[in-house]
Amino acid sequence: MSYLFRPNHLYRMPTHFGPSLGARQGVNGRRYECIDGPNDLVVMATFKANKEQLEALLPPGFSLREPYTVVLDFSFITNIEWLAGRGYNTFGVSTPVTYHGKEGDVHGDFSLVLWENKADPIITGREDLGVAKIYCEIPEPQCIGNDIICRASWDGFEFASLKLSNLKEVDPETFGAESGTANAVPSAGGLYYKYIPKTGCPGEADAAYVTLMPEDWPNMKVQQLQQADAAVSRFREATWEQLPTLVHIVNCLSDLTLGECTQAIVVKTCGGKDLSDVRIVH
Amino acid sequence: MSYLFRPNHLYRMPTHFGPSLGARQGVNGRRYECIDGPNDLVVMATFKANKEQLEALLPPGFSLREPYTVVLDFSFITNIEWLAGRGYNTFGVSTPVTYHGKEGDVHGDFSLVLWENKADPIITGREDLGVAKIYCEIPEPQCIGNDIICRASWDGFEFASLKLSNLKEVDPETFGAESGTANAVPSAGGLYYKYIPKTGCPGEADAAYVTLMPEDWPNMKVQQLQQADAAVSRFREATWEQLPTLVHIVNCLSDLTLGECTQAIVVKTCGGKDLSDVRIVH
Amino acid sequence: MSYLFRPNHLYRMPTHFGPSLGARQGVNGRRYECIDGPNDLVVMATFKANKEQLEALLPPGFSLREPYTVVLDFSFITNIEWLAGRGYNTFGVSTPVTYHGKEGDVHGDFSLVLWENKADPIITGREDLGVAKIYCEIPEPQCIGNDIICRASWDGFEFASLKLSNLKEVDPETFGAESGTANAVPSAGGLYYKYIPKTGCPGEADAAYVTLMPEDWPNMKVQQLQQADAAVSRFREATWEQLPTLVHIVNCLSDLTLGECTQAIVVKTCGGKDLSDVRIVH
Amino acid sequence: MSYLFRPNHLYRMPTHFGPSLGARQGVNGRRYECIDGPNDLVVMATFKANKEQLEALLPPGFSLREPYTVVLDFSFITNIEWLAGRGYNTFGVSTPVTYHGKEGDVHGDFSLVLWENKADPIITGREDLGVAKIYCEIPEPQCIGNDIICRASWDGFEFASLKLSNLKEVDPETFGAESGTANAVPSAGGLYYKYIPKTGCPGEADAAYVTLMPEDWPNMKVQQLQQADAAVSRFREATWEQLPTLVHIVNCLSDLTLGECTQAIVVKTCGGKDLSDVRIVH
Repeated sequence: MSYLFRPNHLYRMPTHFGPSLGARQGVNGRRYECIDGPNDLVVMATFKANKEQLEALLPPGFSLREPYTVVLDFSFITNIEWLAGRGYNTFGVSTPVTYHGKEGDVHGDFSLVLWENKADPIITGREDLGVAKIYCEIPEPQCIGNDIICRASWDGFEFASLKLSNLKEVDPETFGAESGTANAVPSAGGLYYKYIPKTGCPGEADAAYVTLMPEDWPNMKVQQLQQADAAVSRFREATWEQLPTLVHIVNCLSDLTLGECTQAIVVKTCGGKDLSDVRIVH
Repeated sequence: MSYLFRPNHLYRMPTHFGPSLGARQGVNGRRYECIDGPNDLVVMATFKANKEQLEALLPPGFSLREPYTVVLDFSFITNIEWLAGRGYNTFGVSTPVTYHGKEGDVHGDFSLVLWENKADPIITGREDLGVAKIYCEIPEPQCIGNDIICRASWDGFEFASLKLSNLKEVDPETFGAESGTANAVPSAGGLYYKYIPKTGCPGEADAAYVTLMPEDWPNMKVQQLQQADAAVSRFREATWEQLPTLVHIVNCLSDLTLGECTQAIVVKTCGGKDLSDVRIVH
Repeated sequence: MSYLFRPNHLYRMPTHFGPSLGARQGVNGRRYECIDGPNDLVVMATFKANKEQLEALLPPGFSLREPYTVVLDFSFITNIEWLAGRGYNTFGVSTPVTYHGKEGDVHGDFSLVLWENKADPIITGREDLGVAKIYCEIPEPQCIGNDIICRASWDGFEFASLKLSNLKEVDPETFGAESGTANAVPSAGGLYYKYIPKTGCPGEADAAYVTLMPEDWPNMKVQQLQQADAAVSRFREATWEQLPTLVHIVNCLSDLTLGECTQAIVVKTCGGKDLSDVRIVH
Repeated sequence: MSYLFRPNHLYRMPTHFGPSLGARQGVNGRRYECIDGPNDLVVMATFKANKEQLEALLPPGFSLREPYTVVLDFSFITNIEWLAGRGYNTFGVSTPVTYHGKEGDVHGDFSLVLWENKADPIITGREDLGVAKIYCEIPEPQCIGNDIICRASWDGFEFASLKLSNLKEVDPETFGAESGTANAVPSAGGLYYKYIPKTGCPGEADAAYVTLMPEDWPNMKVQQLQQADAAVSRFREATWEQLPTLVHIVNCLSDLTLGECTQAIVVKTCGGKDLSDVRIVH
């Protein structure tokens, strides 16, 4: 007798060994609270960007939202419950957008791409959540005096780096108000475009929809906040020989005209969520 | 203005930078012929297995096919065109089955799981083809005299190994006939169960169907064939702490009662295909 | 004209490109202060051990010192100045000894072996300092609730692990007195046996002497101290095929009869020294 | 009782666990014949170079030998007996020299630096043989049509590459004569400058002498030889932040003025030696 799928359980390929193990489902259906972990060190910089260039990267149904910026963020995550206390690193590129769906307008931060250095969260993030995660190597950040350098490479070819200079500790309580971001249109969270191709049918999809990671993090505590005087980012133009699966992405990002850095911070947080609140936006 | 999807092109997340680069589509829609490459070193052993144990690993619609065996195969692939001449390694577990679909019965080799050591082919294999690829480390094989040892680990924990002993070169021309496999029911190819979860809807799927990789390899040439006297395989039972995303898979395979080794070979081949013939089986 | 060695400068192979870059000498002879870094997370456990077994591991001139113990310590070091803010991990085995040299008796902690996961500090540590550093993979520690797990593997084969359970924070100020170690014979520091073979002359040495890393760390600050209820260590016996360069070391350590765990702690420190005070003990 | 060193045995740190395991000594003193292995794929290119620049890289006692060239060679070695059938990769830079020692003049090929991607052979090569081996990542070569690309990186920063184009198979028997190298002054083998610093004594050395790897390889068989039309090499200039331990080496090599490529070949060989014939040159 073949096996049957258990109702209301999460599955991923291979489905033959029972419900999947991942961030939202452990052994025997165990859930992860994400209170004492994970620990996250985020290095983030926002740059003014060109409206036309960014619009060309939005799927149908999206429009750009002011301020026209690109956000680069490196995340160095440890103490992750579902990985039995291990960690991984990420490097993302996003931009503020509005999605015009059947539900009405949703203001959010659109993830253009999210590199990660471990395959397991890439697979679950793509298939469970619709996040456009792909692989690269992301070494631990370099801390040199009050500067921090983050890097991303693929098969030994460094294609991106981000350096923040003259970091100074600031009070998380007063930071938002001072920086004026308190008055901006609030973001509903991260927006993603999930796309799964239909096997053997070029141009057709098993799934093509928008997902939202709601901006609600009750268990996350900011432990430290540092602000930088300046930030320098760099995407290095590559050949197909150097980046055969990434060259179109990296060279497109390398072509973006980035302007002034409007914010550059390093944040240490503890706690998170299992992201089971990520949902389809109709 | 947002971008539009180009008809009949292959896309994968992130879709925002244009059609995807992968095995079946290169820069500017280039296709890969797979004549002078890839080079593949396959280390493969077949073991008699327990019918009931194997049946419990088959999705609905499948039944076990004689002989009741499990095939373990390590593949060390180099010179891959779509990776600009790079390579990667795989470790698969499969069993002969028949799929009873609307099209009628399809006899094939069902892939229970396929580990690979590079994220890019994992992503494209899962989403484009429906192959249940997951990640592990697969070091190059150890060649000691006439023996060969293959290994698989995850985050430094070796969970599987396969050793073939006393390899002797045999003639590929006469091998099939001698070994008696010529008379078996021919396999239509590899069978896979594609399953993509629907975001935010536990128990629901964006895709849940069977795919077939047809047994048709016109460009593949066998360059060398070696037969072993014996083969020993081992799955090492693990804890959740050791393999938090794989423990259910590895321990299930570790529990399988494997019998006599009925065939153990090492094959070197050149050439392949871009797998664009993989199709849904209704 | 060939080059000349610059007097009083540190050199390592290759010497042809000028004085070496390392922990004790940077570009243009720069020195590293080691005040704001490195950051070190040390996971350490002490076990009672068998006198005869340990004595057999001591070079001529050494005798064992009470208490007869083996200390296992994993170190996860970040923010290292001479690596431009990078880090690396170590796993060491040591035992208290007395060295009876011409200078008189020196009480210290003898390093039997020190595994590290980066080649650069291994090379400088062996040649500049005489520390018996060798290579293995040391992944970041796993933090699961109040437990911590450390692991060491070589080419994907996990040969050692250390787990501390029920960690509780304690006051560094009062810890030494409480634990009774305050009354023990003070250690002069780490003791090492430097041995460099003479090329082409089996049994002869270019160097064979004892070195000392003095127990003097004025710049090191303890930031956090945690004590565990229990510790479990494990060396996994290996074959030559699994560990062709380490099998004699790992199996010897695996054969040690370890008794009660007398202390198990996790310490976070900041600051260190460039180890230029390491000296030969005559 | 402490242990005693066994006469005529090879030792390396740590010496406490008995004679070392390595290329020239296995378990129970076993020796490795190196007849059926290792397998070596060598990608090598010779470039005309500037005499003054090269001379500045020679230690006292050496002079440059015509033709004034730099040889870059990548080696991809598999099936190594002393590593139980594993392999590793190397990237070397060398130049023809004459050493003027007490024994008289020795014409050889001076190794300026040899990068390797595994720590174990680095350690044994430095200490047993005096070869200036240091670490970097060396991925498998990329084979694209009739071109081959080799690369070297450190912590994800690619600092060197070598590309050979339009490879064509040639007859190993007639190759030497045709290329005119048959008439050159024969090389006695590889020359190395061994230097081991004395601990705690900047400017002093435990060892500082020249070693020779004799040009005598009775067990090595050339299996295939390919000649390229052209070769392009590149050292990428780096900052201290990018290569804190290598910057002086890489930037010096990057500054070399390389001229015409006089030979570019790919050689596949089988068999070697355990290098126990490497000796000090007085």
